[in-house]
Amino acid sequence: MARKAGSHSEITGPKIRAEAQRLFARHGFAAVSMRQIAAAVGVQAGALYLYTPDKEALLVDLLKTHMDELIAAWRAISKSNDPTARLEEFVRFHIRFNLERAEAVFLSYMELRNLSPENFAVIEDLRKTYETELEAILKSGQDAGVFQLPDSKLATMAIIAMLTGVNTWFREGGRLSRDKVETIYWDMVRKAVGA
Amino acid sequence: MARKAGSHSEITGPKIRAEAQRLFARHGFAAVSMRQIAAAVGVQAGALYLYTPDKEALLVDLLKTHMDELIAAWRAISKSNDPTARLEEFVRFHIRFNLERAEAVFLSYMELRNLSPENFAVIEDLRKTYETELEAILKSGQDAGVFQLPDSKLATMAIIAMLTGVNTWFREGGRLSRDKVETIYWDMVRKAVGA
Repeated sequence: MARKAGSHSEITGPKIRAEAQRLFARHGFAAVSMRQIAAAVGVQAGALYLYTPDKEALLVDLLKTHMDELIAAWRAISKSNDPTARLEEFVRFHIRFNLERAEAVFLSYMELRNLSPENFAVIEDLRKTYETELEAILKSGQDAGVFQLPDSKLATMAIIAMLTGVNTWFREGGRLSRDKVETIYWDMVRKAVGA
Repeated sequence: MARKAGSHSEITGPKIRAEAQRLFARHGFAAVSMRQIAAAVGVQAGALYLYTPDKEALLVDLLKTHMDELIAAWRAISKSNDPTARLEEFVRFHIRFNLERAEAVFLSYMELRNLSPENFAVIEDLRKTYETELEAILKSGQDAGVFQLPDSKLATMAIIAMLTGVNTWFREGGRLSRDKVETIYWDMVRKAVGA
């Protein structure tokens, strides 16, 4: 949240965000009241309004922060100039980052319909920025003649959907480790782009 | 809905289901009241309870009907014995069927958290039945030596996520026709399974 109201908010801000995210993910944005969030944080409902103008602002903050962190984290690790190596980095990064932020990812898919058109546009822009990072890798591979792709835009959407889908079925301690899952998905993505 | 209460319900049943689906998809299950559904249908809230015991029963009916129709439609068109041809049939069928039922697909992903454990299990079973249809194709291709797959279970989840993702970005009258999209996705799936 951009606005802070003194040292009180410095302490409760992260707690408010964590509790709001947990409650929105569990019950859905529409079903959660500011009063419930305040109760989970352990403050009066009035104190919440020192931190955020309303419930939608809280949701936008959660969704925007998630996308900002996703993009920053990817840009921080991205190193290789070789399109195939870079695509492998992307595949492994996306699976790992999203599994670590399951609630935030879930919210990002579930609650877009609760945003005003202006706020929706902000989140959509960030989503496109991230997709463009992957599309640039796919295009560089096409240009270098190492990827065979009928359509880099559709391949971008297909790969992101495939990778994000891991969040719907992966369970820690199940048949496969995260690393093994990353390796199997990388095998499929590599073949899908004809590398 | 299994229960019908005479000719009145015979008439309003499909309308109730259509309005409930539209309202749930637009505002979210938690945010929609039985009163709102009744108003959209043009009946008193009391009349709705002749048709369904409660709002969750209405949601379960929508989700279950969608899965039943998906499975029945796939079994009705599935013909080829050749694994590659059959996989292509599946890819094209899944994209086409889901694009035609965008609201039902959206609900199926969004509202699972609003089901009781018993109802969730019913929908999950149907989902697994459908996934098993795809996994059987992938295994038959592995057995025949025409697919190269590290893991048929993960490939099943990856392919379904990839194909269902089309619903999030496809717009009628956009750059690509449905048929062209099917063809591009089939190209990626075929390569991904090493066929």
